[in-house]
Amino acid sequence: MTMVSGKVTLLSAGPGDLDLLTIRAAKALERADVLLLDDLANAQLATLAPNARVIRVGKRGGCKSTPQAFIQRLMRRYAAKGLHVVRAKGGEALLFGRAGEEIADLRRAGIEVEIVNGISSGFAAAAGLGVSLTHREHCQGVTFVTAHLQDDSEPDWAALAATRTTLAIYMGMSRIAHVCARLAETLAPSTPAAVVQWAGSASERRLLSRLGSLADDVAAAGFGSPAVILIGDAIGAAEGFALDASSASAQDDANAAPRRPLDGYAYAA
Amino acid sequence: MTMVSGKVTLLSAGPGDLDLLTIRAAKALERADVLLLDDLANAQLATLAPNARVIRVGKRGGCKSTPQAFIQRLMRRYAAKGLHVVRAKGGEALLFGRAGEEIADLRRAGIEVEIVNGISSGFAAAAGLGVSLTHREHCQGVTFVTAHLQDDSEPDWAALAATRTTLAIYMGMSRIAHVCARLAETLAPSTPAAVVQWAGSASERRLLSRLGSLADDVAAAGFGSPAVILIGDAIGAAEGFALDASSASAQDDANAAPRRPLDGYAYAA
Repeated sequence: MTMVSGKVTLLSAGPGDLDLLTIRAAKALERADVLLLDDLANAQLATLAPNARVIRVGKRGGCKSTPQAFIQRLMRRYAAKGLHVVRAKGGEALLFGRAGEEIADLRRAGIEVEIVNGISSGFAAAAGLGVSLTHREHCQGVTFVTAHLQDDSEPDWAALAATRTTLAIYMGMSRIAHVCARLAETLAPSTPAAVVQWAGSASERRLLSRLGSLADDVAAAGFGSPAVILIGDAIGAAEGFALDASSASAQDDANAAPRRPLDGYAYAA
Repeated sequence: MTMVSGKVTLLSAGPGDLDLLTIRAAKALERADVLLLDDLANAQLATLAPNARVIRVGKRGGCKSTPQAFIQRLMRRYAAKGLHVVRAKGGEALLFGRAGEEIADLRRAGIEVEIVNGISSGFAAAAGLGVSLTHREHCQGVTFVTAHLQDDSEPDWAALAATRTTLAIYMGMSRIAHVCARLAETLAPSTPAAVVQWAGSASERRLLSRLGSLADDVAAAGFGSPAVILIGDAIGAAEGFALDASSASAQDDANAAPRRPLDGYAYAA
């Protein structure tokens, strides 16, 4: 196989704020000849790639999505010219980013692929809530899962719930009522839950609730995509969780602080 | 509650190489008055914290581990003096880092806690192998789990295997034969598997195998802690996987490339 002299960097652009990029990512952007900007990546990334031709391959703003095959062809074409192509993806490229297909395609074409890790929105969401995803008093791990499967089927929610790991659910907002109902067949409705929209960006919004009331609270507070849904006892350690009005246990707790709004938090009525 | 004027930053130091720090982490280190260096964090972090008093709280080198309660007392003490304490933890602080206990303790003491995300070794391991953790042709997600539980019990391996997510197992090397045997009660022995030691650092070593032979291969190649164990069909997309001698399917594949060593990879005999 002939190796081409260009290369492709699959770059994890993190959840939004530019200072959540890794130093390695910033260096790769500096050296980029071509920057392919994904729909969920911060457009300001282009300011870190002064020498790059910037191509938006996103679908923000109601425009039609750039077909995956076209994006892959772009990467091959520019790399074949000997250029350094940086393909920037929101969050962590190795989590729900179709990186698997792109890596396979580039390898078949004899193109060198470099992968630069980044911060996935699930971790940024936990940081915003001030919780560990794996508080050892509550769970043994965390599962990242997408509610949106390739074949329009759905994950095995009963099997996922049975692990008793914290669940970080991506791309689940459009079917949150259904997802919560399925999980509630295994988990208690009182299980702590949260939604963090635009985690790790200046627009971050957080909502604390419980599994049984999460979908209603999300609708009432007007939360939408992109957002991460977090479910599990570890989420109960979030700052302000006991103040949540939908929490029966908080209402029963005579020592609970009076309810007050916390910066960036939404509380359902 | 009286708020103190100092604060604590729980800083995710990433898997090793300093350029896998986020820009935000580098900025926090620059401003640190006190730097508490965890055992798995790169000691070179101190070079990024020129104004900080550096305190090692690790257990590398056969020394006794610094008790958790003592570390928490140190953080409270320096923050109460109005200092900015940076507590650097290897990998991502919100994954298996006892951050939950530390956040709770600091909040009780009225100390502001800032959390800075980072790259967990499971993601660095996947980058080293050149695989997505969630290749959508193979799985719907990834589960990060520790083999080492607080009460010396063990995770529910059958439940974890039943999710069909990629499994990223931390702190599992000392009991890898047992873990693989338990998982093989649910998963096929031919399930692709890998171990990455010192993922994301200059010393990174990778081993490709399958669930049924992983423990033997790890022993033969002399892999030890710290390492991440990755198990699932998505791992079969790793570069060089088809070259793995323990892979029956590779041996059956007439088109398989001749076996050759790949930089940084170990192959069991």
